Parts: sequence; structure tokens; C-alpha cells
Amino acid sequence: MTTRRKLQPLDALVSPRYTQVSTYARLPHDRDLQDVDVVFIGIPFDGGTTFRSGARMGPQAVRENSRLLRPYHMFLDVSPFEVFNVVDYGDVDVIPGSFQETAHAISHTFRPILDHGIIPLICGGDHSVTLPVLKELAYIHGPLNLIHFDSHFDFWDAYWGQKYTHGTWLRRSLEEGLLRHVAQAGIRGPQFSREDLAYAASQHILVRTIKDFHHQGVTEALRPILDMMPDQEPLYVSWDIDVVDPAYAMATGTPEVGGLTSWQALECLRALVGKRLVGLDIVEVAPAYDAAGAPTSLLAANLFYEGLSVMAKNYEQGIRAYPNA
Amino acid sequence: MTTRRKLQPLDALVSPRYTQVSTYARLPHDRDLQDVDVVFIGIPFDGGTTFRSGARMGPQAVRENSRLLRPYHMFLDVSPFEVFNVVDYGDVDVIPGSFQETAHAISHTFRPILDHGIIPLICGGDHSVTLPVLKELAYIHGPLNLIHFDSHFDFWDAYWGQKYTHGTWLRRSLEEGLLRHVAQAGIRGPQFSREDLAYAASQHILVRTIKDFHHQGVTEALRPILDMMPDQEPLYVSWDIDVVDPAYAMATGTPEVGGLTSWQALECLRALVGKRLVGLDIVEVAPAYDAAGAPTSLLAANLFYEGLSVMAKNYEQGIRAYPNA
Amino acid sequence: MTTRRKLQPLDALVSPRYTQVSTYARLPHDRDLQDVDVVFIGIPFDGGTTFRSGARMGPQAVRENSRLLRPYHMFLDVSPFEVFNVVDYGDVDVIPGSFQETAHAISHTFRPILDHGIIPLICGGDHSVTLPVLKELAYIHGPLNLIHFDSHFDFWDAYWGQKYTHGTWLRRSLEEGLLRHVAQAGIRGPQFSREDLAYAASQHILVRTIKDFHHQGVTEALRPILDMMPDQEPLYVSWDIDVVDPAYAMATGTPEVGGLTSWQALECLRALVGKRLVGLDIVEVAPAYDAAGAPTSLLAANLFYEGLSVMAKNYEQGIRAYPNA
Amino acid sequence: MTTRRKLQPLDALVSPRYTQVSTYARLPHDRDLQDVDVVFIGIPFDGGTTFRSGARMGPQAVRENSRLLRPYHMFLDVSPFEVFNVVDYGDVDVIPGSFQETAHAISHTFRPILDHGIIPLICGGDHSVTLPVLKELAYIHGPLNLIHFDSHFDFWDAYWGQKYTHGTWLRRSLEEGLLRHVAQAGIRGPQFSREDLAYAASQHILVRTIKDFHHQGVTEALRPILDMMPDQEPLYVSWDIDVVDPAYAMATGTPEVGGLTSWQALECLRALVGKRLVGLDIVEVAPAYDAAGAPTSLLAANLFYEGLSVMAKNYEQGIRAYPNA
Amino acid sequence: MTTRRKLQPLDALVSPRYTQVSTYARLPHDRDLQDVDVVFIGIPFDGGTTFRSGARMGPQAVRENSRLLRPYHMFLDVSPFEVFNVVDYGDVDVIPGSFQETAHAISHTFRPILDHGIIPLICGGDHSVTLPVLKELAYIHGPLNLIHFDSHFDFWDAYWGQKYTHGTWLRRSLEEGLLRHVAQAGIRGPQFSREDLAYAASQHILVRTIKDFHHQGVTEALRPILDMMPDQEPLYVSWDIDVVDPAYAMATGTPEVGGLTSWQALECLRALVGKRLVGLDIVEVAPAYDAAGAPTSLLAANLFYEGLSVMAKNYEQGIRAYPNA
Amino acid sequence: MTTRRKLQPLDALVSPRYTQVSTYARLPHDRDLQDVDVVFIGIPFDGGTTFRSGARMGPQAVRENSRLLRPYHMFLDVSPFEVFNVVDYGDVDVIPGSFQETAHAISHTFRPILDHGIIPLICGGDHSVTLPVLKELAYIHGPLNLIHFDSHFDFWDAYWGQKYTHGTWLRRSLEEGLLRHVAQAGIRGPQFSREDLAYAASQHILVRTIKDFHHQGVTEALRPILDMMPDQEPLYVSWDIDVVDPAYAMATGTPEVGGLTSWQALECLRALVGKRLVGLDIVEVAPAYDAAGAPTSLLAANLFYEGLSVMAKNYEQGIRAYPNA
Repeated sequence: MTTRRKLQPLDALVSPRYTQVSTYARLPHDRDLQDVDVVFIGIPFDGGTTFRSGARMGPQAVRENSRLLRPYHMFLDVSPFEVFNVVDYGDVDVIPGSFQETAHAISHTFRPILDHGIIPLICGGDHSVTLPVLKELAYIHGPLNLIHFDSHFDFWDAYWGQKYTHGTWLRRSLEEGLLRHVAQAGIRGPQFSREDLAYAASQHILVRTIKDFHHQGVTEALRPILDMMPDQEPLYVSWDIDVVDPAYAMATGTPEVGGLTSWQALECLRALVGKRLVGLDIVEVAPAYDAAGAPTSLLAANLFYEGLSVMAKNYEQGIRAYPNA
Repeated sequence: MTTRRKLQPLDALVSPRYTQVSTYARLPHDRDLQDVDVVFIGIPFDGGTTFRSGARMGPQAVRENSRLLRPYHMFLDVSPFEVFNVVDYGDVDVIPGSFQETAHAISHTFRPILDHGIIPLICGGDHSVTLPVLKELAYIHGPLNLIHFDSHFDFWDAYWGQKYTHGTWLRRSLEEGLLRHVAQAGIRGPQFSREDLAYAASQHILVRTIKDFHHQGVTEALRPILDMMPDQEPLYVSWDIDVVDPAYAMATGTPEVGGLTSWQALECLRALVGKRLVGLDIVEVAPAYDAAGAPTSLLAANLFYEGLSVMAKNYEQGIRAYPNA
Repeated sequence: MTTRRKLQPLDALVSPRYTQVSTYARLPHDRDLQDVDVVFIGIPFDGGTTFRSGARMGPQAVRENSRLLRPYHMFLDVSPFEVFNVVDYGDVDVIPGSFQETAHAISHTFRPILDHGIIPLICGGDHSVTLPVLKELAYIHGPLNLIHFDSHFDFWDAYWGQKYTHGTWLRRSLEEGLLRHVAQAGIRGPQFSREDLAYAASQHILVRTIKDFHHQGVTEALRPILDMMPDQEPLYVSWDIDVVDPAYAMATGTPEVGGLTSWQALECLRALVGKRLVGLDIVEVAPAYDAAGAPTSLLAANLFYEGLSVMAKNYEQGIRAYPNA
Repeated sequence: MTTRRKLQPLDALVSPRYTQVSTYARLPHDRDLQDVDVVFIGIPFDGGTTFRSGARMGPQAVRENSRLLRPYHMFLDVSPFEVFNVVDYGDVDVIPGSFQETAHAISHTFRPILDHGIIPLICGGDHSVTLPVLKELAYIHGPLNLIHFDSHFDFWDAYWGQKYTHGTWLRRSLEEGLLRHVAQAGIRGPQFSREDLAYAASQHILVRTIKDFHHQGVTEALRPILDMMPDQEPLYVSWDIDVVDPAYAMATGTPEVGGLTSWQALECLRALVGKRLVGLDIVEVAPAYDAAGAPTSLLAANLFYEGLSVMAKNYEQGIRAYPNA
Repeated sequence: MTTRRKLQPLDALVSPRYTQVSTYARLPHDRDLQDVDVVFIGIPFDGGTTFRSGARMGPQAVRENSRLLRPYHMFLDVSPFEVFNVVDYGDVDVIPGSFQETAHAISHTFRPILDHGIIPLICGGDHSVTLPVLKELAYIHGPLNLIHFDSHFDFWDAYWGQKYTHGTWLRRSLEEGLLRHVAQAGIRGPQFSREDLAYAASQHILVRTIKDFHHQGVTEALRPILDMMPDQEPLYVSWDIDVVDPAYAMATGTPEVGGLTSWQALECLRALVGKRLVGLDIVEVAPAYDAAGAPTSLLAANLFYEGLSVMAKNYEQGIRAYPNA
Repeated sequence: MTTRRKLQPLDALVSPRYTQVSTYARLPHDRDLQDVDVVFIGIPFDGGTTFRSGARMGPQAVRENSRLLRPYHMFLDVSPFEVFNVVDYGDVDVIPGSFQETAHAISHTFRPILDHGIIPLICGGDHSVTLPVLKELAYIHGPLNLIHFDSHFDFWDAYWGQKYTHGTWLRRSLEEGLLRHVAQAGIRGPQFSREDLAYAASQHILVRTIKDFHHQGVTEALRPILDMMPDQEPLYVSWDIDVVDPAYAMATGTPEVGGLTSWQALECLRALVGKRLVGLDIVEVAPAYDAAGAPTSLLAANLFYEGLSVMAKNYEQGIRAYPNA
């Protein structure tokens, strides 16, 4: 009879936090999926960007700035690395310049991960990578509920005839039937036209703008979204870092002023305790635009930790991402 | 019979947002005033600064960081470029090192613009440029109401014998009879002495400090100001970017901690719907002090858009900047 | 009969604020303790850091970014440089690489300062320097009440066998009997384990997390702390700049997202009016990680000013730091 | 009878150099090709990059940093804007994410420019854009001689199956018969294998490595190249900014240490006086990686000026880019 | 009988180099001119700039980056602080926005310094400050020889009618009869017109361009200049930091590519051993444009040290700046 | 019979160079020493710094910026990863704050590496780490020849009583009898006193200053050093990154102007072909002071590659680091 492997972050009392090769949360970099519950995986593709490029450099920057993550989440009262075996899987071998071939690579990489019943924490890259990820997850779980944190709608039909970009992935996902209930949170900034709102309505997308967050607070702003999505249905969260204000997260491709604070962002994820979270992506971190000390990557690293802790709390409470896990 | 020209931003579905020569909001750079309703105009003068110089580089940085502005304002439900023909007029040909000659250049440049009944969006430069602008506007509209967003009072008499600086323009404006009701919003930071407050009182200036904003919220903090100023009277807004907190707007000459957030700043301008706004300046953006990605210039670009959208909304509601326009 | 010296900041109407050798608040750099009430003193030691080093560069950066501090605090209605003679004492001659010898140097430097009944404003350096400072102050005042603003507990027993680091100073202080009532404010971020909280409880440390501040506001969050500490007992405040959010204060060794805003930080200090404040340190400013324009150092410079103003206000109200002063 | 238009940079004695909308060398932004001799044109495409992306932001940064270019070249004794009418044409409307469609756009944009007998100064974008440019030029001039300044060979067959990238354009150009004599200058850094050199030899490419430049000086290093290329044959120069050392030009996608100094770079272009230069591109400027003050873009702006001055000098000496011009 | 004061830099074996209030070379900040031989003095005025402003921040940045200067110059074999008593005098109380009043302040400040037979090391500020300094020195020494290191000629008549700017000081100095032999070294970059060279010739200015330095080396490039100026005549050196290449000194107002390396710059000053050097200025350091770590200010601090060491070496060899000193 | 493992960098044609967890040159991160010939190993200790701290962040920054290293060195005509199995061993588990305990950790970590006959490439950390490394190597090889590239002598006796710092390691090494022939190259900058040179002479240290390099060229400057050291004797190279000019390598603790160019630095290492190189360290990279794009770390990564290629070339020519390897 074999023993389950125990996978843990490097011990900071042995190796100081700034030492050793950098992996997410100083977790093992390992592609052996045996006994693994959660993977951190990068998809460093930025061929879908329409303004500033550079999100391809996101995953390694997030890793480098995740060195301070310690094992116990005091507000959720959970120790995620005790609950789950988590590894840093490395990155998908993307094909710069080709969305289609990158999508195949994503599919090829995710299939075995999901087949092992592993929850992915996905680090972009630009937002176009969410579409192939959703496809793989929906293949396993069926149509997903989606909470999409972003300052932009991302449901345009095409840019310059291009159907697969960081601004069209949501429409493609809807067209491909990958989604059930869809909500968008944090929307703001100038839009193309009033028709943008009409499209959301036509698709029964629940839109909570940034105004809802600033006027009502996180809890009230999210309530209709949480109410709309039954706890036991598979939920995917796609988090564009630009939903956060540039003061906290400048390093992104299409920044919009007036966004969430870092605390609001953390609370948004924390509010998902009790939901069957089957995956989380954080995308559009473009480190070349970060201030000294890399505040945006630091925040993204913490948002992953927040999501992971929610998943761990859920697990302790009997909620399983995979139905028969 | 001639047709009215239709002036529009570059179409992002033809030219991606990061392409082509940079003008404000990717609007036409044009000095033909025919059919123009609003101009964006730079006054890159920083000879009035008393601490960090560099605001002369403001206008071009704001232009460069205005590329993401799209045509529809969803919170105000208005499409400003549909309502108005807007152009980027370029900059006043300032005379570095001479306030007096720069003031003449401003006068010379503004006269025909105002004669055409055009509303100016004025990008500094340091705050000293507001005085000659006010002079031109008051020549057209009579004494103006002024809402002055700033962390500083700017009504000192002189610095080192210099009467025309970014800290004295307001006193000069008062002395020259250019203003009717004056309010200051966002004041904070250490002051020279208790007499500063006394001067404000003696001039019937309504001061709402930053504490009012943080404790009461934007709506309540602004209420006495809005109440004081009849809707139909011409209102000028002078916005020193340092009213915003350095976390959001570090790139300025005399930063003060504890300021407005970006969302509060947007709401301050949005609150002006219904007022007869005849001009708006945003000054003291000193781009050399900006973080990577230029968050301060990005914010300034959006604040102009916010002001423009308020003007457009007003226009839709029958409020005209020029009485017989 | 001699006259008391009058020590004042450089007059900005003689020497513009950006000119002349940089001292804290442009105060005299003076080691003559006669007639001095408050000193600004740097302790540029960073040998106790466990992540990013660089806090040794803090004091000079804070000095350089204190040039805008003017003499009158409008919210507290006090002119601190009228109330107190304040000087910039310069730095302790630390011994890089040796905490023990640096501790001796601190002791050696502080003894005469405290013997003159002077209140110290202490600029780190990393947090390890607080221990020897507390030792000197407790020698004069007896056990101190401590409000510790920080995102971290700092009461671990040792790192890699090292007992004197920026994460252990509080436990050492408790063990050495230097403290009476202890409260921690702003705690957040991932912790090592649930036992961290147990240790706090076992030591009767009152912990107010960042959640208390974001959910209740500064006043309510601080109330239990203020209630716990009698006004007439000597109070020391130790402020780790990382209690503030990285958007406002990125330049620090172990940043944690989700922290205080700059305004909340100012209000935290302002709330101490009425308490017998005998010293204040601000530590862990690591300027190499600051954004352009040095926002973190600017904030730290203002926080010292806030603390100084509270002390001055107290003095006006009859509260003396030294019992027989 | 019509007069030839006289197109000139903005007069710095009217509009200070830091004022007004930014175009290359403050030249008119104009798409009327009448009477135009040279165009500056941007191709902001970076879909062909294999390491750091961001070259799409190159053209506007080069424009912004070309404001200091004055009219007289003292070392060549020529006033290029007197010799030629030069305009800033703006950018090609590239299609981010699609090389093929961008290539069509390039073709579509260049055809009328070349039909007017205008010499293009082409600002990348990544190096993949050179292929379609060469195609258009060869269509007009026949097979071109090429001097390729770069630290990399750029003649690999494919990356991840992609045939059109910034590392394959030269092989494609050779395969498509666009080139006659080819020389590479400045090659350095680690290579994939010894076979790289063999390929160069097999294609009769004359390779002058960086070692030749550092050991022999610019004149001697370039002599074999200049000897190989008859003066009257059309010559195209393709300049990857990474041929310059990162100390001078860090802002590029694949930097290699040990490169040219800025002075050597200027001398390389200056050495081309007497050659029939039909076009010049400078590519791979990725401004997000530039130091404060934008030294890389500043250098690129000057290199264009150097090339333009060489063309002007040639013109004065009777050398025409277009045979019957 | 009184003893001569002995003024020395702070001892780095007592106070580590990164500690204590920052003065030039950690020298005493002192305005007592008794026994002083050389002063470092800042003139933080940038009202004469025609492109990027910000040189007003130069002096304090140079001080801060002079902390590594140790007492012995090994290449000149001299210990300047043994030879001379040197102090940091602080800054002239300039009047921002007024060249004329600043010129009076310079005069007022320099008169007693020169009356004490003290040699000034002058840190700009922009280049306009050299004119009033020359006036004071010529008042003492009679017409001066001048070596002007710069990439620009600085002898234009006026900008926008302004006669006193950083580009006109040299013509004013010539007109006012302050200069005898004048040489310019390092000239490069695009010029306004061929007439610029004619003006130099008409004034008998010896121009050595950057090409002379790169082609002949420092020694040969300077030889004609040194030959032209008799050793015993008073020599002033005015050094615009932009004579150095932007790779080494980006932080300046009007950078020009292709300049001196740092080693060449050091050698230029070192070549002046044997000349009666009566003053040295280094101007146009604009720290906001410096890269991390402040390389430009570091270089400027070293260039002052180089000049000071030359003066000390001269003194040891019997050459006196003041004839009867 | 087992086969020798074949360890190779990640294939860039499978995983683009910017993808996957970052190790030196994208080599395997592996602590299995079987079949390993060379290790890259970090020693992230900066407790020995006397000015700017931060070198502890060096190793990971060098790894991150080594992604562009390809397999073939064209100037040496060698493929180092074909010759050697190289791995990234990770970092020594240093003890921040304690040199002595860190020295033990270094000893403990290096012993098995050297016992396996593996050549170390050592990435600092500050220069104090070289002493324990030399001790381990001398234990294996006997007294070593040392070429010390640096701008500083590093042979002072103590700082503030501290015997083990980045400025004293060389004297300690000499005292402990670890060294045979010692040479220093690139020395420059102000020194403490003339006695510094006397100490070098007394220890028979051959000093080649930076002047030798700039005046004679790399080959001639190094000739006396190479002549002094018999080829078959074990040679260690210790490279302080500050020997390179700040224009190329600003990110270091005690930068000195006037240093080597990047090309000169490469040539210095390349000149060692034929010498029995038993180890190479590159120290004092302090990434927080690097410009955008990380030029200093990029250079350091390339210098390691240069050293490795020399070792590989030597191996091909029959020179073995370990006598019986």
C-alpha cells in the first residue's frame, strides 16, 4: 500500500524566503500528477492583446512575487497547503503568434490535469487564454457558471476580423455553449456604445458595475451574483487584473481608472466560500509596466492564494470541485 | 448650404488604439475652428512652480495616455463625441522662463477659440496658467464661479517677491475681479499658518477639506458647494492633480498624502451635471515623476473625459456653456 | 540669564523648498541638546531583515522627502515647531552586520537624548532597532504601553537561530519586561500558523486586524486599544510602514496587500491626541523599491509630522511626555 | 503652374521643442504624397517576437523622443529638411495577432508611397515587418542589396512551426529572391549551433561580427561590406536596435551584451554616404523596457536622422534612390 | 595665535558611508568661510531650460550620490582633503521664475566667497547660471579663459526673445567681455544651421567636436585647447553633463547621443593638471530622468572630485588659483 | 552498466524562452550530483555590505535574465552544454544577519559538490561569500591563484571592528594561506590612502588598474597577470560586477564610474582560455538598483556563460579543473 505524497512549500526557517529557484508560493515544481490536488499553471500567451502587449511575462513575475505567502490564512482560518497538495506545474508551451496552436497546446496540457481531478490556478497571459481553458473544464464539468471580474465586457465579436482576442473570448464561450450563468463584476471605463449593455442583457449576463462596488460595498455588490448561482453548480472565476485600480495594479494591458482597491479584491474572492469553485484564472498582468517592487504581481500572487484558500475552506466544508472526488 | 463637419476619434477597428500619432482621445489635430464645440488645448508652462518642475511635459503625456478613451460613457449615459465636435488644438506657444509673455500667448490663443463659442479643456502646465485663462473666460462670460480642486489653497500673495506663480494665481484672480463664488475642495496637508484659513474666510471662499470628503463621501462633501452656485451661472473648474492621493497621481510637483482616490475624483466631476460648465483645466501633471505605465497621465486623461461627458450631458439637457449658443 | 534657543525650519520664503542640504522638515541639523524638545534621529540598520534588505537607506530618503512640510497642522490646529524646538540629530552610527554592536550604539546615542527629556522620532532601518530603543525608553519611563502598527506580528522566537531580527523584537521586548499593555493594529496577510494567534492571546496582546479597520473605520477599530491604555501612562508607537497598502507604500521589505490607505494611516496617528506619547518610530522604509517621486518616503515623512503634531497638541493640553518636564 | 510645397519641422523659436503634438522630428503629419520625398512611417506590429513583446509601442516613442532633432548635420555638412520634403505619414494600420494580414496592410500602404518615388524611413515594430517592406521595395527596384545590422542572424527557418517571425524574415527574403548581396554586421551572443555560420556561408552572406567592429573600428569593419556592394545598386539597410549595446539601447526584445556604442552606430550609418540608399528600417525598440528619459528611443530617433542625412547628402551629390527621379 | 581649522569628511570607519545627513563628499556643511579653501555650492535654478526642466533638483542629488568619495586619488597621487579645507556651503537662495533676481542672489552669495580667496565648485541648475558666476570670477581675476565641455554651442542670441537662457549664456559672456580664450569640447548633435559654426569662428572660439575625441583620443583632442591657454592665466571650466553620452548620463535636459564615456570625461578633467583652475561648474543634471541608482548624479559627483583633485595637485605643484594666495 | 545522464537546457523550440520556471540558462534544477560537471549555485547573502545592501536578490535575478543564453559560443567555437553536464543547484541556505553561520552553510553545501569533482559557478550575494568558497576550494586544490576583477581592493583589515565583510575577504584569504599568486584588475576610484597601494605591494599582489585597460586594451592589460600564473596551477576568478562601468552595471552596492565596458568584460574572461579554471564567482549584483530590463543581471548571466565556455574550451583542449578528472 502506497502513501500519499506530502507536497509542501519550502520551509522558510530552512531556506530564507528570498532564496532558491522561484516557483509559485515556493511550492515544488513538479509534473507528476499523482496525489496532486491543485496546480498553479502559467499560460504565457499575449497574442490576443489589443493595446499594450507584455502579459506573456506574467507567470514568472507572479511566481517571483509569491515568495512571501505563508501557510495559514487567518481570516478564513484555513491552512491551504495542509488541505491540498499543490504544485507549480510550470507553463503551457504556448506558440507565440498563433492563438489556434496555443489553444491546442492548452487543451493538450489541461486534459491530463483535469483527468486527475486537479483544480487549476491559471496565470495568464492575456484574457484570450480563458476560452480554451473553459472548453476543457466544460468538457469535464458541463456548462459552467462564470464570474468574470474585469473592467471590460470582453464580449465583442471581433477586432479587425480577428475572432480570438482578449476582447472576444467571452462571446466565443457563450457561442460555444460553455457557460450557464454568467456575471460580470467591476465593469467601468468608457465603452464603445450603448449597445454593449444591450448585448449583456440579451445574453442574460448579470452586470455589476464598479459603481455598485463603491456605493454598496463588496458584500452587497456581489449578492445578486451569488444568489444567481447555485452553490453546487461548477463555478469558474476569471479575474482580469485590470478590475483593480491602477494605483494597485498598473501593470496591465488596458488599465482603467476608478477600480477596486486591493482589499476589495481580496474580499471579492473571499465571498466565494461555499461555492463549488472548479478553477480560477488571473490574467493580463504585464510586468514591464509595474512599478519598482512589482506591486501588481504581488497582488496577483495574493489573489491566487485567496482563491486557493477559498477552495481549501470549501473542501474542509465538504464541497468538492469534482463531483466524485 | 454647407454641411457641418463631423469630427470623430480615430476608429479603433481600423487603427488599433496604440497606433498613429497621438492626440487627445485620438481626435483630429486641427486648428480650423469651424464647427468645433470643444477643444483640448495644452499650456505647457512650468515657470510658476515652487518645488519640483516638469509640468511642461504634461500635455503630451496626457495625450499619449488618452488612447483608451472610448466613445460611450455608461454611467452618464452619454456619447460625448456624438454630442460635440471635439478637436485637439495642440499647445499654446508658451515662452519658457516668462510668465508675462506666456500670459500674452495664452490670451492671444484663447481669444479666437472663445469667440467661436468653443469650450476649452485646458491641460497644464503648472497652476499659474489658470489666471490668464480665467481672464479670457471672464471677458466673455463675466465673473465666473470657480470650483478649485486642490490640496493647496494657492492664494498666497507672493513667493520671493514673485506675484505670478502656481501658488498665487487665485489671489490674483480675486484681486482682478474675475470670480464670483469660489469654493475649494480637497484641501489638506500642512499649511503655513492659521492665517491661511482666515484669508479664505475673508474672501468668502467655501473650503471643503479632504476630511469632508473622507468622512462624508463625495456627494455630501460637495453639496454646500453646489448649493452655493446657481446652475445657470458660468462655472469654471480648476483641477490640480495633486488633489488626488499620490498612490494614484504621484507625478506632480507638490504631492500631498491623504488625498482623493481615483473613483472619488471621477465622482467629483460627475457631480457637476446640471451646472453650466464653461471650462475645465487639469494642471500640475509632471510626467517625469510618474510610475511605469504613466498612471497619473492616464488618470488626467480620464478626468478630462469625465468633464467632457458632463458637458455633453448638460448639452443634451439644454444647458449651454455660451448663453446664446 | 540665557535665552532659550529658537530652532526653526528653513524659511521657504528665503530658501525655496527644494534648495539647501536636506534635513528632516528642513530643521537644523544639530547635536547640541540644549533647549531641544524633540529630535528626529535615524537608525539606518537593516541587518535584521528576512526578505528584501535596503531599509538602511530609509532615513536619508525620508529627510529628502520631508521638504514640503509646512508649519501649521490645520486638522489638529497646532503649529508643532512653535510648540517644540525640534532638530534633526542625524543618524546613530550603526555597525552594519552586527545587531549587538548596533544595539550598543543605539543605547549610547539615546542615553543623553533621553536624559535631556527629549522625545525621539526614530526613523529606521528595519524593525529590529525598536528593541534597543524600547530598552532605553523603559529605563527612563518604566514599562511602556505599545501600539504596534504593522501587517506582521513580529513576535516569533527566532529565525534560523537568530534571536534579534525584525520579526522577533516584540517577543524579546516582552521577555525583557519592557512593555505593559500591548496592542497590534493592521495585522493581515498569510501567517505561519494558527498558533500565532494563540501566542498573542497568551500575552494579552490586543490584536485589531486590518479587517477591523476596513469594516469599522479607524475610530472604531482603534477604540478598544485606546480604552485599554490609560492616558497618563507612557505610550510608545512603533509603526512599520508595511501596515500601509503597497499602493501607497511599496518601498518596504515585506509588503502585504490589502493594507491601510494613506488617509487611514494619518487618522490612526491623529487618534492619539490625549495620550502621553513618549516616542514614535517609523521603520522598514526601503527606498530602492519606491516608485518615481518616492511616495513611500513622502508618506513616512508626513507620518512623522502627524505624530509630532499630536505630541505638540498634547503639550498644549498639558500632557507631558516626561513626568516632571 | 503650381508651386512645390515646402514642408518643414515646427520652428523651435515659435513653438518650444517640448510643445505641440508629437511627430517625427516635429515634421508635418500628412498623408498627401504630393511633393513629398521621404516619409517616416511606423509599423507597430510585434506579433513576430519570440522573447519580450512590446515593440508595437516603438513608433510613438521614437516620435516623442525626436523633438530635439535640429535641421543641420554638422559632420555631414547637410541640411536634410532643405534637401527633402519629409513628412510623418503615421502608422500602417496593422492587425495585431496576424502577420499575414499585417503584411497585406503594409503592402497596401507602401504601394502608393513607392509609386510616388518616396523613400521610406520605417520604424518597427518587430523585425518580421521587414519582409513585406522588402517585397514592396524589390517590386520597384528589383533585388536589393541588404546591410543587416543586428546581433542576431534572423535566418532561421521557423519557430514552433511559425514561418513568419522576427527570426525568420531574412530566410524568407532570400527564398523569395528579394535580395542580391547580403551582409550582416554586429552579430554576437550565443548561437544555436555551428550550423548557423554554415548557413550564412551557403547563402554567400558576408558576416562581420561585433568583434570586427571592436577590434578594427567601424571603418575597417564595414569596408568589405561596402566593397561588395556597387554604389549604384539599390541598397536597403535594416537596423535592429539590439545591435547596439544594452547600456545604450536596453529597450528591445532580445538584448545581447557587448554591442556597438552609440557613436559606432552613428558612424555605421554615416559610412553609407555614396551608396544608393532606397530605404532604412529601425526595428525592435520596445519602450516599456527603456530607462527613465527613454535613451533607446532617443537613439533610434537619431539613427533615423543619420540615415536621412546620408540620403540628403547623397542627393546633393547626384545619387538618386529612384533611377529616374 | 589661532590655529587653522582642519575640515574633513565624516570618517567612514565611524559613520558608515550611507549614514548621516548628506553633504557633498560628506564634508562639513558650513558657512563660516574662515580657513576654507574650496566650497561646493549649489545653484538650483532651472528657469533657463528650453526642453526638459528639472535641473533645479541637481545639487541635492549630487550630494546624495557623493557618499562614496574617499580621500585619496590614486591616478593623480593626491589627497585633496589634506591639501584643502573643503566645505559644502549649501545652495544659493535662487528665485525660481526669475533669472535676473537669481543672478543677483548668485552675485550676492559669491562675492564674499571669492573675497576670501576660495575656489568654487558650482553645481547647477541649468547652464544659465554660469553667466553670473563668470561675472563674479572675472571681477576678481579679470577676463577668464574658458573650456566649455558640452554637446551644444550655447551661444545663440535669444530664444523667444529671452536673452538669458541655458543656450545664450556664452554669447552674453562674450558680449560682456568676461572671457579671453574660449574653447568648446565635445560638440555634437544636429545644429540649427551652418551659421552656428561661422559664429564660433568669428569669435575665435576653438571648437573640438566629439569626433575629435572619438577619433584622436582625449589627449590629442584636448592638445590644441591646452596649447591655446597659457598655464598661468585663470581658467574656468564649465561642464554641461550632456557632453557625456546618455548611456552614462541620461539625467539631463537636452541629451545628445554619441557622447563621451565616463572614462573619457574623467580624463578630460585630469588633463588640466598644470593649469590655473579658478572654478569649475557642472550643470544640467536633472535627476528625475536618472535611472535607478542615480548614475548621472554619481558621475557628476565624481567629476567634481576629479576637478578638486586637479586643483589640489596644482596646489602641491605651486599653482595658486588666486594670484597672491 | 549505467549510462551517463545527459542534462540539457530546455529546448527553446518546444518551450519559448520566456516560459517555464526560471533557472540559470534554463538548465535543470537538480541536486543529484551524479554525472554533473558544473553547477550554478547562488549564495544570496548581503550581510557583508558597507554601502547599499540588496545583493541577496542577485541569484534569482541572474537566473531570470539568463533565458536568452543559447548553446553555441561562436567566438570560442565551443558548445558548453555539449561538453559539460551543467545544473542549477539552487542556493545555499544562508543565514541572513550572520556571516559565520552562512560560512558554515557554504562549507556544508560546497563539500559534496567539490568532492564530486564539480566546478562551481557562484553567484553572490556580496563579496564576503568568496572567503568561505576559497577555503573549500583550497582544501581540495591547495592554494589557489586568484584573479580578482573589481574596482576596489577589498583587502582592508576591518570595518567598525568587523573582520568579515565584502571589503576584507581578500586580506582574510591571504592571512589564511588560501592563495598563491594574486592579481587585481580594474582597480579605480578614490582610495582611502596611499597605504592601500603599499599593502598590495607588500603582499606581492599584481595590480592592473582600469587605466591599464583603457590605455593598453584588454590583452595587454592582462598579459602580466597571465604571465604570472602558470597554466597548470588552479586558478580562481572572483568578479565583482562593479568592475564594469555603471552605464552597463549600475545594479551594485558600491558603483564606481570609469569602468570596463561590457565587451571588455567579456574579453577579460575569454582571455583565460588555457588556464586551469577551478571556479568563478560573480558577486555584488544588487537588482533593486537595476534599470528597466535588468541590464546588470543580463550582463552577469552572460559573464557566467563566458566563464563556462572558457572552461568547456579548456576541457576540449585537455585541461582539467580537477587533476585526476
